Amino acid sequence: MIKIVLIGSGNLAQHLIVAFEKAAKHSQKIDLIQVYAREAQKLAHLLPLDKITTSFETLKEADIYILAVSDDAIEAVSSQLPFQDRLVVHTSGAASMDLLDAKNRKGVFYPLQSFTKNKKVNFKKIPICIETQTETDYELVSQLAQSISNQIHAVNSEQRKTLHVAAVFVNNFANHLFAIGEDLCVDNKMPFEILQPLIQETVDKISVLSPREAQTGPASRKDLKTIAAHEALLHNENQLKIYQILTQSIQDNGKKL
Amino acid sequence: MIKIVLIGSGNLAQHLIVAFEKAAKHSQKIDLIQVYAREAQKLAHLLPLDKITTSFETLKEADIYILAVSDDAIEAVSSQLPFQDRLVVHTSGAASMDLLDAKNRKGVFYPLQSFTKNKKVNFKKIPICIETQTETDYELVSQLAQSISNQIHAVNSEQRKTLHVAAVFVNNFANHLFAIGEDLCVDNKMPFEILQPLIQETVDKISVLSPREAQTGPASRKDLKTIAAHEALLHNENQLKIYQILTQSIQDNGKKL
Repeated sequence: MIKIVLIGSGNLAQHLIVAFEKAAKHSQKIDLIQVYAREAQKLAHLLPLDKITTSFETLKEADIYILAVSDDAIEAVSSQLPFQDRLVVHTSGAASMDLLDAKNRKGVFYPLQSFTKNKKVNFKKIPICIETQTETDYELVSQLAQSISNQIHAVNSEQRKTLHVAAVFVNNFANHLFAIGEDLCVDNKMPFEILQPLIQETVDKISVLSPREAQTGPASRKDLKTIAAHEALLHNENQLKIYQILTQSIQDNGKKL
Repeated sequence: MIKIVLIGSGNLAQHLIVAFEKAAKHSQKIDLIQVYAREAQKLAHLLPLDKITTSFETLKEADIYILAVSDDAIEAVSSQLPFQDRLVVHTSGAASMDLLDAKNRKGVFYPLQSFTKNKKVNFKKIPICIETQTETDYELVSQLAQSISNQIHAVNSEQRKTLHVAAVFVNNFANHLFAIGEDLCVDNKMPFEILQPLIQETVDKISVLSPREAQTGPASRKDLKTIAAHEALLHNENQLKIYQILTQSIQDNGKKL
């Protein structure tokens, strides 16, 4: 039985509480014994109040302390913990493991997903990226991760930071392209729904082909006539600039401008 | 019963043949009576040879002639058709309806989807964009479209050209961002699979939120520290340039650079 204390009450903390409570019900392998929140009320819909503490001084003894706090708070919170030689992990994609205070054993437990408030996620399919200082701790964090997910990856700090950038490309930036598609529809009196099946197919395709193999369109077939026609249609300077840079990048196979 | 003749043997033509044959089996509303192909053999796996012709002179009389040919061929093929006053539609997102020869009634039947050879698609969910010269012809093409799809849209030539550009953003360009994600993973010895659940969630999210509402990440929250850290990590000049332009565009809400 792995005893967990979770520190944080934000979006990720709340999703983790739901996942841990569900896993604890289905097996006896983990137990979320306590959660720290600055305002207990924020978690009252998820946990009985006696499981919530608002003071570091009353933190219980656990096998793993999970910091689900903002990147900027990791250093301060980890240094305020009133114990030592225990395993403390943060959940950030961007922060180095070394940000954690050296008085405790360090680790990272990074679920690679975009969490939206009130939108349920299937944790089983969320990759959890783990880093620790020792193999023994890796084994412990890995067991915890396996209780909620089927996708566990050993990922060091450098790799994790790269993943965090990659996530910006495939999530934030791809979503922005969808927003441009939405703008183009709305500005021309068409519903955005008309593009959704194409977006779904774009993603379905890369489950059978790699993105490089799946690349189609005027840029990849160097269809200069269509590219020129598209450029002439784009009256928004920003859209035009993005069109040109991504077209160039595809033509160059993404390797250089 | 709407009698159809299809002209073309490429990727889209083959997907349409499958869809029309399936629809014809399930109802008596349409009948694909003939297909024109330069090489009959190319369609032998889909149709009995007596349904295929390699000569325009032997084209049968039909209610709708569908040109599933490349944009560059629309004008020439439509002018070679040895009849007049019949309804001829092309299937292109980029080509104007006016490219079709004036001796016949003109229309457009544009399925907005990315078709991959040998990958089945569910036509029911593919938006079909229709344009015609008269309401009577619209009704006819619309009935045909409804036999294979549940999403029918009246879209004029200008709107359709905009949709075609929008499709480049949400399909070709989004896929290129996935390819960059793949490069970042592979270059740092991680499997691309680690990003796939995030990509799936990116798309799932816009079925409940509009892309503008779904936008997250360092650019949208103007987290300059994380942006600077990401920029420092990107050693590929091309990736860096794309990162900066899309970050800027998100910060400006996609409206201007």
